[in-house]
Amino acid sequence: MINVHGGDIYKHKDVIDFSANINPLGLPRGVKIALMDSIDLAVHYPDVRCEELCKSLAKYYGIKKNYILCSNGAADIIFAITAALKPKKALILAPGFAEYEQALHAIDAKIFCYRLKEEQGFILKEDFLNAVTKEIDMVFLCNPNNPTGEVIPKELMMRIIETCKKNKTILVIDECFISFLENGAEVSVIKEVERYDNLIVINAFTKLYAMPGIRLGFAAIGNIKMIELINKVRQPWSVSVLAQKAGVAALEQKEYVAKTKELIRDERSYLMHELLECGFQIYGSKANYIFFKGQKGLFDLCIKEGILIRDCSNYRGLEEGFYRVAIKGHEENKKLIEVLKRCQNGRNKE
Amino acid sequence: MINVHGGDIYKHKDVIDFSANINPLGLPRGVKIALMDSIDLAVHYPDVRCEELCKSLAKYYGIKKNYILCSNGAADIIFAITAALKPKKALILAPGFAEYEQALHAIDAKIFCYRLKEEQGFILKEDFLNAVTKEIDMVFLCNPNNPTGEVIPKELMMRIIETCKKNKTILVIDECFISFLENGAEVSVIKEVERYDNLIVINAFTKLYAMPGIRLGFAAIGNIKMIELINKVRQPWSVSVLAQKAGVAALEQKEYVAKTKELIRDERSYLMHELLECGFQIYGSKANYIFFKGQKGLFDLCIKEGILIRDCSNYRGLEEGFYRVAIKGHEENKKLIEVLKRCQNGRNKE
Repeated sequence: MINVHGGDIYKHKDVIDFSANINPLGLPRGVKIALMDSIDLAVHYPDVRCEELCKSLAKYYGIKKNYILCSNGAADIIFAITAALKPKKALILAPGFAEYEQALHAIDAKIFCYRLKEEQGFILKEDFLNAVTKEIDMVFLCNPNNPTGEVIPKELMMRIIETCKKNKTILVIDECFISFLENGAEVSVIKEVERYDNLIVINAFTKLYAMPGIRLGFAAIGNIKMIELINKVRQPWSVSVLAQKAGVAALEQKEYVAKTKELIRDERSYLMHELLECGFQIYGSKANYIFFKGQKGLFDLCIKEGILIRDCSNYRGLEEGFYRVAIKGHEENKKLIEVLKRCQNGRNKE
Repeated sequence: MINVHGGDIYKHKDVIDFSANINPLGLPRGVKIALMDSIDLAVHYPDVRCEELCKSLAKYYGIKKNYILCSNGAADIIFAITAALKPKKALILAPGFAEYEQALHAIDAKIFCYRLKEEQGFILKEDFLNAVTKEIDMVFLCNPNNPTGEVIPKELMMRIIETCKKNKTILVIDECFISFLENGAEVSVIKEVERYDNLIVINAFTKLYAMPGIRLGFAAIGNIKMIELINKVRQPWSVSVLAQKAGVAALEQKEYVAKTKELIRDERSYLMHELLECGFQIYGSKANYIFFKGQKGLFDLCIKEGILIRDCSNYRGLEEGFYRVAIKGHEENKKLIEVLKRCQNGRNKE
């Protein structure tokens, strides 16, 4: 198995990891305490209904409890969705998160790509509506998109939802990074699952609460038949006792989330300024990561300096020279900029 | 989703749980420490290769590291196996663990049952070899079997493996309870995966190390093509950081395992003696649970007394009146016997 994702600190040891888009504030204290307190509960099987966690999520998002399906990270539910709903033809964005394609590939679905164009700043345009034809069974969107960090505005998203509805196309919207946006709650369409039975909204605790190692995600689905089909293809105990407890605690971390938004806003502005100074071309980048175009070979130069950035050349629709860096704490961001500047100077001297 | 399994302490609160077959010694101290120490590592994605854990497992079982696939509990790999290898026709035992059927049902496989007969003490007989015909693509066996606790002897198991090999049938053997046997290491066929490319051996940390809430299982597969197919249908990060660390620590708990075997041997003998005194018919029961036939309605009578036993009437091939109880610590076992005796007396008075 080749890992084509960021965050592989096991292959690249002793580096500052800018390749995984994890909240730089680290695990919230409340989550840490919940994890410690739940170790003794590990002698029990997890609650197959994730009752307590679903209740907390329902309250947090203002949707019905029985519309929520918890999972072993967002990736788990992505694979379960394709395995259960078996789309024959699916539409994804290029570039976009690799797991949608992997999960579609797993069931041998035919994959169609809507190419986000460099000359349009990798922005999804209205012509996307034409790509959602009647023959498309499933569409995957990530909002904000990964790796570009570009946001699909609510108004356009609602038109996409309507088009999918009209064409009997299942629309899966991954909102894993939406909480990092200034106006995330307004952009989110999670509540629309109550009105649209063809809509699935995915989210995870991974990035916002800095807990990728715990594995916790969920889907909001307003279609009980779909939920039944998805539960049919997966084990009942996919979410560990610790993950369920951590999730409940995480949803109470209001102050942590407020601090996160502040930090990300400040550091995004710092990093963008500096990266532009370096002469890099920046796109989108409205979430907690910055997507830019720079010189070829930057990944290797950075690794030599102990900095792991995300080389985006293996994203479908991208080529060498595209990179993504997570927004981290100020000291680490400064270090990143120092290294990038050294790389640039090295090149200028050549 | 209806939970038809044991261990549902979320539905039945404040009970002594004899329905889940978990080691009564509880979480080993070394595992608890490993879990506490790894909470701070939860800010990282898990190692997709489970490198350290696979190394430990390879050493523990004396098999090649690249033949091991770790998973989010044994149930996770069971569903991945059927999803990846897509058997059209499969053979299972009745009664047997419900997840094999669920996982086969998920891919709409045609399921054939070999019925273990009450009059034969629910023992798998040689005529099972005739049931493994050429048209069977996959066979699931659990050794010792759940819920019966009956063991398939090594010699017969090798003949089953050979028959499957000859018929190009994939044989999945679940050894989740094998470590509770006196002679578990002799009965196990895990090393045979190096010789048979149609053999998959499953095991989990769940029962032996009392960590069902952590979710950790694995499969040993000597067929690299099969491993690739299985990895294709599942997410890369299925095993949490904490589960990986807990697993490595668990494999070092030699003393804990020795103590477990001693306790189970003593308490099995106590419980069997007392259950026979109650007039119950006991079958198999060579692992850490006892399978018996008693009066109808015993589950409800026990629940009223704060004792959760496993009503086995929803197992395929069983009817009302079959029960399974985990072997727990002596005080709890005594309490169980007290309650069962009261139930028996109550019946006698009627």
